[in-house]
Order: sequence, then structure tokens, then C-alpha cells
Amino acid sequence: MQRKTLLPSECPIARSLEQVGEWWSILLMRDALQGLKRFDEFARSLDIAPSMLTRRLNSLVDAGLLQRVPYNQRPLRYEYVPTGKGEDFRIVLMAFISWGNKHLAPEGESVQMVDRESGQSLQLMLASATDEQPLPLERCCVRPGPLASQAMRERLQNL
Amino acid sequence: MQRKTLLPSECPIARSLEQVGEWWSILLMRDALQGLKRFDEFARSLDIAPSMLTRRLNSLVDAGLLQRVPYNQRPLRYEYVPTGKGEDFRIVLMAFISWGNKHLAPEGESVQMVDRESGQSLQLMLASATDEQPLPLERCCVRPGPLASQAMRERLQNL
Repeated sequence: MQRKTLLPSECPIARSLEQVGEWWSILLMRDALQGLKRFDEFARSLDIAPSMLTRRLNSLVDAGLLQRVPYNQRPLRYEYVPTGKGEDFRIVLMAFISWGNKHLAPEGESVQMVDRESGQSLQLMLASATDEQPLPLERCCVRPGPLASQAMRERLQNL
Repeated sequence: MQRKTLLPSECPIARSLEQVGEWWSILLMRDALQGLKRFDEFARSLDIAPSMLTRRLNSLVDAGLLQRVPYNQRPLRYEYVPTGKGEDFRIVLMAFISWGNKHLAPEGESVQMVDRESGQSLQLMLASATDEQPLPLERCCVRPGPLASQAMRERLQNL
């Protein structure tokens, strides 16, 4: 992809996009978190050229979102399995599902978020880190963290 | 960008990426939701070529995430302001902040999510849609919705 690098950026969104900011990467993580593991499974799901798929999988391994696990010794063959960091990426996919279902599925939902145990519908929300009280999205904003530069402080001070 | 179109896909993640799956678009929405409005402000923030910026802004207007609002009549000049759909995109940005802060900010956080009123730290979580009881992420999964195709049902049945 043609682009100027976003690093070094202190913005966590920019840093995230540096690792997964290509739509292939996000769809690969979707597939991996839905249980696809093998090269052929990803290739079939995404209808993507093998050379491109190899590059994308390698880049997700390099970024520490997927790990290679051998499933055959002769010849040596690997599966691709989410790491802890990759598992945590689920929250981004859930956010896309949440927004996509609300705004891009006028005919009705094809995918829903549910509690694995109870089957209850779930919604994504922001809540107080201490008492887990949920808050309406419009009350949620960002502020400079302890490591924020002066430029970041100025940028965020008017919000 | 070189890519095969993702439409018609019933997957809400794929649909979302169809509209914002370029990293410029996501960073533009970040900036717009942080209060940037004018062409020059976006250009300065992203250090992006004017022709590219025009294309990206137009594409976000076409997708209904931004709207053009005149701020000057002669010559006619527009600001770019998030629509309701664009405001709701905040949840995706919050997910990137949440994941980025956890995994890509080893030196400490530069940006934090807080309650605008109390200043309390916030976390993103999935919670029951009815009683807002938060759930650990590993209990959250997806299931076919009422509009799911047979292929989607088969794909999701093993999760």
C-alpha cells in the first residue's frame, strides 16, 4: 500500500492502523477469530491471491496478532492462530459489527453479538472503569494521557 | 486503492470496511470527531496531498458520515461536520484506542477515554442489551441474525 508511515505517532488509533490498517488485515482477523486457521480456508473465504494472502498473514504474524502453529511435519505445514493480542482485537471487530448493523443493514441483521453462555443479545458500550456503570456514547470523550506530548495536549484541550 | 469490492456482502464488518476501510478515512473521522472542520485543518493534521484529501472527504460525504456546511458565501466555502452516522462511528475509534492503548503503548498512554462530565476513566465493554450487565470479552461471540444466508449460518455454527 502506498502511504506515509504513521510512526512515530503517539495516537493509539494511528498506531493500530499501522498494524491493521488494511482492510485485508481486518477481514483476516475476523476470519481467524471466527475459527479459520489454514491458508486454504483464508484463501477461500476472502477470494484473495495466494501471494497477497501470504504477505498479509506474515504481516499479522510479524505484528504479533497471529502465531504459526505446525499441524503437519512432513511436509511442514502451519495453521494461523490468534495470539492474546489478536484475541483482544475482537473488540474492534465488535465495534464494526455494532456500527455496521446500525447503519449499513437496513434490511435486517445477518450477524448479531451474543453472550456465548446465555445467548442474550449484547451491545457495545463505554462504562466507568471502576464501577462498570454504562455511559451514553455522547458523554464519552478522550483526554491526554500521562505520556501525551504538548501538541497532543493542545489538540485535545478544546474537546 | 486496488481492491475487489466487498459488496454485496452481508457481513457488517465487510460493509463497514467498504465505507471506511482505508486508513485515511478512519483518521479523517478521528479528526472530524475531535472537532476539526476545515479542509486546511485536515490537511495540516494528516499531512496529506490536497487532491487525495478532497477524494477522501468526498467519499465520507457520499457515505453519509460527514456533511458539508457552508461557513462562507463569497467565495463559497464548506466545513465538514459529522452526521449522526459519523458520530456513531466514535465507537469504532474508541475500540481502536482501547486496543492500541493496551497493546501498542508500552511506554504509557497518550490518549485516554473519559467521561466528559466526571472525568472518570472509561473502558469499552460488551454488555447485555437488556440489563446492561457487562460481560468478559471471551464470553462474547457472534451468531447468525434473522437475515443471515445459509452460508453465513454454516460459517457461524461452529463458533
